[in-house]
Amino acid sequence: MATAKVREILSWYSSENPGVKANLARLMNTGRLAGTGKFVILPVDQGFEHGPARSFAPNPGGYDPRYHVELAIEAGCNAYAAPLGFIEHVASDYAGDIPLILKLNNSDSLSKGHEPCSAITGSVEDALRLGCAAIGYTIYPGSGDRNIQYENLRELILEAKAVGLPTIVWSYPRGAGLSKDGETAVDVAGYAAQIAAQLGAHIIKVKPPKKHLEVKEAAATFEKNGIAIDTLTDRVKEVVRSAFGGRRIVIFSGGEAKGTEEVLKEVAEIAAGGASGSIMGRNAFQRPKAEAIQLLHAVMDIFAKVK
Amino acid sequence: MATAKVREILSWYSSENPGVKANLARLMNTGRLAGTGKFVILPVDQGFEHGPARSFAPNPGGYDPRYHVELAIEAGCNAYAAPLGFIEHVASDYAGDIPLILKLNNSDSLSKGHEPCSAITGSVEDALRLGCAAIGYTIYPGSGDRNIQYENLRELILEAKAVGLPTIVWSYPRGAGLSKDGETAVDVAGYAAQIAAQLGAHIIKVKPPKKHLEVKEAAATFEKNGIAIDTLTDRVKEVVRSAFGGRRIVIFSGGEAKGTEEVLKEVAEIAAGGASGSIMGRNAFQRPKAEAIQLLHAVMDIFAKVK
Amino acid sequence: MATAKVREILSWYSSENPGVKANLARLMNTGRLAGTGKFVILPVDQGFEHGPARSFAPNPGGYDPRYHVELAIEAGCNAYAAPLGFIEHVASDYAGDIPLILKLNNSDSLSKGHEPCSAITGSVEDALRLGCAAIGYTIYPGSGDRNIQYENLRELILEAKAVGLPTIVWSYPRGAGLSKDGETAVDVAGYAAQIAAQLGAHIIKVKPPKKHLEVKEAAATFEKNGIAIDTLTDRVKEVVRSAFGGRRIVIFSGGEAKGTEEVLKEVAEIAAGGASGSIMGRNAFQRPKAEAIQLLHAVMDIFAKVK
Amino acid sequence: MATAKVREILSWYSSENPGVKANLARLMNTGRLAGTGKFVILPVDQGFEHGPARSFAPNPGGYDPRYHVELAIEAGCNAYAAPLGFIEHVASDYAGDIPLILKLNNSDSLSKGHEPCSAITGSVEDALRLGCAAIGYTIYPGSGDRNIQYENLRELILEAKAVGLPTIVWSYPRGAGLSKDGETAVDVAGYAAQIAAQLGAHIIKVKPPKKHLEVKEAAATFEKNGIAIDTLTDRVKEVVRSAFGGRRIVIFSGGEAKGTEEVLKEVAEIAAGGASGSIMGRNAFQRPKAEAIQLLHAVMDIFAKVK
Amino acid sequence: MATAKVREILSWYSSENPGVKANLARLMNTGRLAGTGKFVILPVDQGFEHGPARSFAPNPGGYDPRYHVELAIEAGCNAYAAPLGFIEHVASDYAGDIPLILKLNNSDSLSKGHEPCSAITGSVEDALRLGCAAIGYTIYPGSGDRNIQYENLRELILEAKAVGLPTIVWSYPRGAGLSKDGETAVDVAGYAAQIAAQLGAHIIKVKPPKKHLEVKEAAATFEKNGIAIDTLTDRVKEVVRSAFGGRRIVIFSGGEAKGTEEVLKEVAEIAAGGASGSIMGRNAFQRPKAEAIQLLHAVMDIFAKVK
Repeated sequence: MATAKVREILSWYSSENPGVKANLARLMNTGRLAGTGKFVILPVDQGFEHGPARSFAPNPGGYDPRYHVELAIEAGCNAYAAPLGFIEHVASDYAGDIPLILKLNNSDSLSKGHEPCSAITGSVEDALRLGCAAIGYTIYPGSGDRNIQYENLRELILEAKAVGLPTIVWSYPRGAGLSKDGETAVDVAGYAAQIAAQLGAHIIKVKPPKKHLEVKEAAATFEKNGIAIDTLTDRVKEVVRSAFGGRRIVIFSGGEAKGTEEVLKEVAEIAAGGASGSIMGRNAFQRPKAEAIQLLHAVMDIFAKVK
Repeated sequence: MATAKVREILSWYSSENPGVKANLARLMNTGRLAGTGKFVILPVDQGFEHGPARSFAPNPGGYDPRYHVELAIEAGCNAYAAPLGFIEHVASDYAGDIPLILKLNNSDSLSKGHEPCSAITGSVEDALRLGCAAIGYTIYPGSGDRNIQYENLRELILEAKAVGLPTIVWSYPRGAGLSKDGETAVDVAGYAAQIAAQLGAHIIKVKPPKKHLEVKEAAATFEKNGIAIDTLTDRVKEVVRSAFGGRRIVIFSGGEAKGTEEVLKEVAEIAAGGASGSIMGRNAFQRPKAEAIQLLHAVMDIFAKVK
Repeated sequence: MATAKVREILSWYSSENPGVKANLARLMNTGRLAGTGKFVILPVDQGFEHGPARSFAPNPGGYDPRYHVELAIEAGCNAYAAPLGFIEHVASDYAGDIPLILKLNNSDSLSKGHEPCSAITGSVEDALRLGCAAIGYTIYPGSGDRNIQYENLRELILEAKAVGLPTIVWSYPRGAGLSKDGETAVDVAGYAAQIAAQLGAHIIKVKPPKKHLEVKEAAATFEKNGIAIDTLTDRVKEVVRSAFGGRRIVIFSGGEAKGTEEVLKEVAEIAAGGASGSIMGRNAFQRPKAEAIQLLHAVMDIFAKVK
Repeated sequence: MATAKVREILSWYSSENPGVKANLARLMNTGRLAGTGKFVILPVDQGFEHGPARSFAPNPGGYDPRYHVELAIEAGCNAYAAPLGFIEHVASDYAGDIPLILKLNNSDSLSKGHEPCSAITGSVEDALRLGCAAIGYTIYPGSGDRNIQYENLRELILEAKAVGLPTIVWSYPRGAGLSKDGETAVDVAGYAAQIAAQLGAHIIKVKPPKKHLEVKEAAATFEKNGIAIDTLTDRVKEVVRSAFGGRRIVIFSGGEAKGTEEVLKEVAEIAAGGASGSIMGRNAFQRPKAEAIQLLHAVMDIFAKVK
Repeated sequence: MATAKVREILSWYSSENPGVKANLARLMNTGRLAGTGKFVILPVDQGFEHGPARSFAPNPGGYDPRYHVELAIEAGCNAYAAPLGFIEHVASDYAGDIPLILKLNNSDSLSKGHEPCSAITGSVEDALRLGCAAIGYTIYPGSGDRNIQYENLRELILEAKAVGLPTIVWSYPRGAGLSKDGETAVDVAGYAAQIAAQLGAHIIKVKPPKKHLEVKEAAATFEKNGIAIDTLTDRVKEVVRSAFGGRRIVIFSGGEAKGTEEVLKEVAEIAAGGASGSIMGRNAFQRPKAEAIQLLHAVMDIFAKVK
């Protein structure tokens, strides 16, 4: 039976059909955080996004797709997320071992000079035949091509919903509309979370927001209403409430690889801000496996302690 | 039984099927203005359009999607309009409590340098499964991308009509074809209302027109024919008759948040000009709830008094 | 806002989308019984089923389709149910005045010697374009053609559900598998309610069960488990719990025309047994209108009193 | 990680896509028998098949659909199987709590004189939107209508497979082609298991075979080859090897309600014959819940002990 | 029976259906390298890509499509790959003689000034009616049009898979995002292999990588992690592990025509790096046939010797 916490979170999604709810429940009932309503997800799309050497050379076991799903299972993650090739490689041999999330769009970094826009690299049909529990999709608010992305996402969400699959949206502000600092500005991060939620995302993944305000009118609002943004915890709070007053699952990425202490300090601040969890890629799979599991467990322990 | 006033208004839509008429009737038979043929609608798309902080920080209860639908119900509005995420969040728990209008396109304000064009963020299929009474859509007459918008709208209207859903069009002149003042010029506002009506809109939503004439040839006509535009009431009259001689429902937005007296004065002038009602977002949900309800009631009272 | 009673009943349908819930709520929020969770529905399919003279000659106003919808509106019924022609005739002129239920199959009585099976006489598309709040369908458990009926019904329910329409099933045991008495036997009535519920009916309409047990094995069970069937109230209780332990809306027809006192006595017994309401055709529309309204009000009062 | 036993069983289904394997794994990784490769499933289709009173009056809690899914969860069953109405009633409120199997065809017992043939009462689309882990389907080898059933089944299996759903086939010999004793004859039971396997069933459900040989030519073969059929264990062995030499999951029903000792004795003999498990309906849900759980646990313990 | 080596390679594709596996096995069980898991494929798309004179004048027999398929058969290649016209010309007369690979997109070199993007010149339907064992497709990572190519490829792979056809992807970095040297840089080659694998390619065809690093961040990674790139063998190793740690079939082209010794030296280095084989066009068909066969045999012998 689901815990009261899991039931409470499912109640935020009362308009969904039982299939979507059941898969959300599967994500929440798996791994070391099962039943807490918290998430630690292992995502490995860097091979596609940054190239294999930059992603896997630091810990070469990761060139093999089996490495990552095994890491996610052994560490007790809630789910493992990856592009089609990586998922397809392991879906049969590890069938039923961990919920899989098929990332349906991806962008390589070999082409330049365009507004950021990922290619659609998988389908809802793929997600079903591979036994996935959810689909994933990246949008770039601020990109000149954002409307195409929003429209494709909406169609995929509707299609996925009909077959019982929830959607996780990576909402990464980027593009001509934003300064470099603006990509992680706290006002923009909150806005990105809101856009994902309005488009129908069930789980929203954003980057930890920095102490910067990008949009002039938003900056005025933050000041006038005394919205605190000094600490990461303050900023996470604002992003979480930007996602329907906290009634959507919002998880944060760890960003670039860094030292263990630094990671855990950041995670603790994120958890204190009301985040539903972490999605941790490079900081996990670029470490030796034992160390990665230790780190992931430490992250899980932090989230498990927050009520 | 419908009132004579409601029957009269429905007679303007005699070519529509009974499903569209029944939903128009539902909108007119709901709330404190039920039976008067007048409308006060609560729209909350600012989270998507302007970002969550600018929209909800002034009255932080509004970060939670439930706040708005409850405000609309408690205030006795005719309907509540919002983008997919906000509607979906409340559609099940408040099923049947108030007519819902699903806004099918939305635009964020993070990207710059393009002609204004909203992304399609919902579908007629969504409107049906969520139990909505109408769809909404924004066009930007004056935008370089207006034709795409008109063409998408026509298809959506046709699709919606077949399943008994009427369409509300937000007609907001904007884009390279217009000066800043031109966006609210009275000739442009009337033109925008006409375009929406010609495209098949059942309810047309425009901004209160300012005393400015944008198009040279139009200005000459206004002068030659002695069309009064000095008072807001004068200008509303011209906009209303621009929408098929008053035989379409035309409602006016309140625009930016402002003081209560100012709002009510403007509404009184709009009502005197023959408007069918107000659609009032920020001026409602950015106030404390009790105050917002008081304001909405005062607005309703003004419209109720106009014959 | 919906009453606690309406919310409770909607909670029985938690797997449905908001559209289906909203239309169930509309049915429950309309008429003199609004908010009570009880139903009095006016159905007029006898013109098709028994022929016009047998149906309408006793009160010739009823030859005109407008008569019936007006009766339903004036009496404060929750809804009006009829075949396509009757609904289509009034849907435009009475748009929005009362929830309409389109009966999607009907059987005339001119052909004999076949197993009972209705023709499909309308579609979900019709229901939408006519602005209906639900579809209706008749099955004949016991008929040699029952499987065709069940399969058509299942497809219609799925199609209707997708567009937010609930389904009312008239479950009338009939056919070679049953004796004449068996058609209204209490075991058979309960079984018919169960079949409708298992097929996905949202509202189940059965006939008042008689004190007869048709199926040998069922008779043994009734006896062994001491299931009371002496009074109509006893029997209604058994039928209601046969529909998912009372967690489905079950309404009872009045059957043949009879005297007012007799009708009200029967209704009181049915109401005491936990029925959600009455669907009353001939007993209403074959009386003069004023009398019919008086009778329907009396029936409503009985249901309103039961908690 | 899946146990070696689960991996071994999955290897029998190597031509399936990962989605089908993942759902088979879910069934094997759930409940008190998780990881053993053994199954105890609670099926409740008797309300449809035999009527509500005969099914639920002995333990009236069972009129309420929630009773059964809770029994299955509390007892630690691998899955809960039922027709659409029962599944739909609980799918949302118990989302994710136990794998659900949607029975896609059902037969009521009110109609007589036809060759046995169930109506299709659900779809693969239903199974997905309700979050089910498998579909179920009944065939009646021996029925004059068997070909229709086989053909429908094949289409459903193909459709289900494409979306990652395995199929459980209830293979119940019945119809004009068989004597009453023949329906459970050991040669016929083995034949029925073979037919289901040949049609693509992933899990095959048969009745415990009796010491009877129906088909003359089969009887000769049994004798000539010295196939033992004296004990139930002997006969179960023959049925299991009839399903691809034991390389298909074959589970046995318990049939009519009977005493606890009798049930457990029969289960022990079935388990010793190599059965993959039991599907136990009436013997479970017609007992008081505590007693039912005790019985189901005892059955599970028997299967857990067999290697 | 397949050799252990072939079985091992097929195990990398465990999520595929038996049809895809069977065609992969056919490719591996054909020709002089049958059973070794190694490939030498003859591709002839230069007529389309470079024009007939440049391609076939050096050895004019090659103007005739029959020349090439006969060369591939006589040399004992695993397969013959070509665009639609060439395949269609020979598919009937040489039916069953050698596995055919239909290249589904091609680019001529008459148009300039666009980002590189091939036209779709065949379909999965063509591949089936022509009896092909696989489809082929070219992507240009680095091209401004790469997303269109990735999206088309994904759809074709899904479609091909459903009918049992594996896909060979020519992954050729090219376009505005890359310098001329970058097109064959070792980091870019590895990235190109990774992208093809993530998109679902079964066999990946790349060019021999040069000792150049294109992407700054990748260069830093190569240095930091001491990835050797001095010899071609080093570089091939890195490309092969970039394709899922060596768990995808990666074959290398020979590029421009050159001397026999040079070709064989290069092939030996490629084979030593763990490549699964060579795809050799111009170096084969522009030589006199006997010489070409001699060369191809020498290449096969090199691969046969590598374990």
